Amino acid sequence: MIENIDAIFKHITQGVYVISVVKGNQKNAFTAAWVMQVSFAPPLICFSINPEHHSYKILQESGICCISVLNNEQYIEASHFGQSICKDKMAGFQWQKTKTGSPALADSLAYFDCKVEHYANAGDHQLVICSIVDAAILNEGNPMLYTDTQDMDNSSELYKS
Amino acid sequence: MIENIDAIFKHITQGVYVISVVKGNQKNAFTAAWVMQVSFAPPLICFSINPEHHSYKILQESGICCISVLNNEQYIEASHFGQSICKDKMAGFQWQKTKTGSPALADSLAYFDCKVEHYANAGDHQLVICSIVDAAILNEGNPMLYTDTQDMDNSSELYKS
Repeated sequence: MIENIDAIFKHITQGVYVISVVKGNQKNAFTAAWVMQVSFAPPLICFSINPEHHSYKILQESGICCISVLNNEQYIEASHFGQSICKDKMAGFQWQKTKTGSPALADSLAYFDCKVEHYANAGDHQLVICSIVDAAILNEGNPMLYTDTQDMDNSSELYKS
Repeated sequence: MIENIDAIFKHITQGVYVISVVKGNQKNAFTAAWVMQVSFAPPLICFSINPEHHSYKILQESGICCISVLNNEQYIEASHFGQSICKDKMAGFQWQKTKTGSPALADSLAYFDCKVEHYANAGDHQLVICSIVDAAILNEGNPMLYTDTQDMDNSSELYKS
């Protein structure tokens, strides 16, 4: 184990996103920072997901998701969707319909409505490589930076598992 | 093609990095923005590379690379290593030795000395999933944001190919 690896990783710049998944009556949304564009033509976006999360099962079944970009004031959203809440996690927030049916967070800056193309292994996570069915800018503002959330996600503990 | 996809993608927050590759007498370095952590345990880092680039061939042969994190004043480095220069591209910059032999940019904020674990397809790019042989913070400062580089890389043209 490299000393201070968590502090060194904080030099990697990431935004903060809420990714929603839906399949029939099941729906969920979770906070993610590990999201990036990976291809120009076709335009592809990739994120890394913990396969033990409830959302992963829904994602695998539906093959669709929506990535909403949080602005730099949406700490309530970043914190709420970062928690494991089994019941009505999406209640109390405004959602916007998308083409795939995975809802976009209406107050977010922009969204990417996605179709899963394939998965790739990545240690304790899985990479999800997605094509973009639709995308739009919803509101003006500046993106939240992951470093602005400090240790909201207690991620410093996760290197030890 | 989604209208304004390039402008929508600018809402995805990325840093700016110089990735160096070396194999025997061959060496190269290139600017990249599509870099992110993808796993806690083991700690893995992933980047997306254009497989037509000269560096990709070297990377495939060596299986090692070093990712240096640029600070928010290193526009000269971001621009220089973003160009296709065949001869002595790495000359004129200070490099620091690493465990794998892929050099780190001495004036960068931090580096990740990497071993390629595997590749994954990603449209016109390839994802490179790497374990971290060594990593260190080199200098104080704030990371460069990809959006700060404006259209330095002419990426708005690349969606059309």
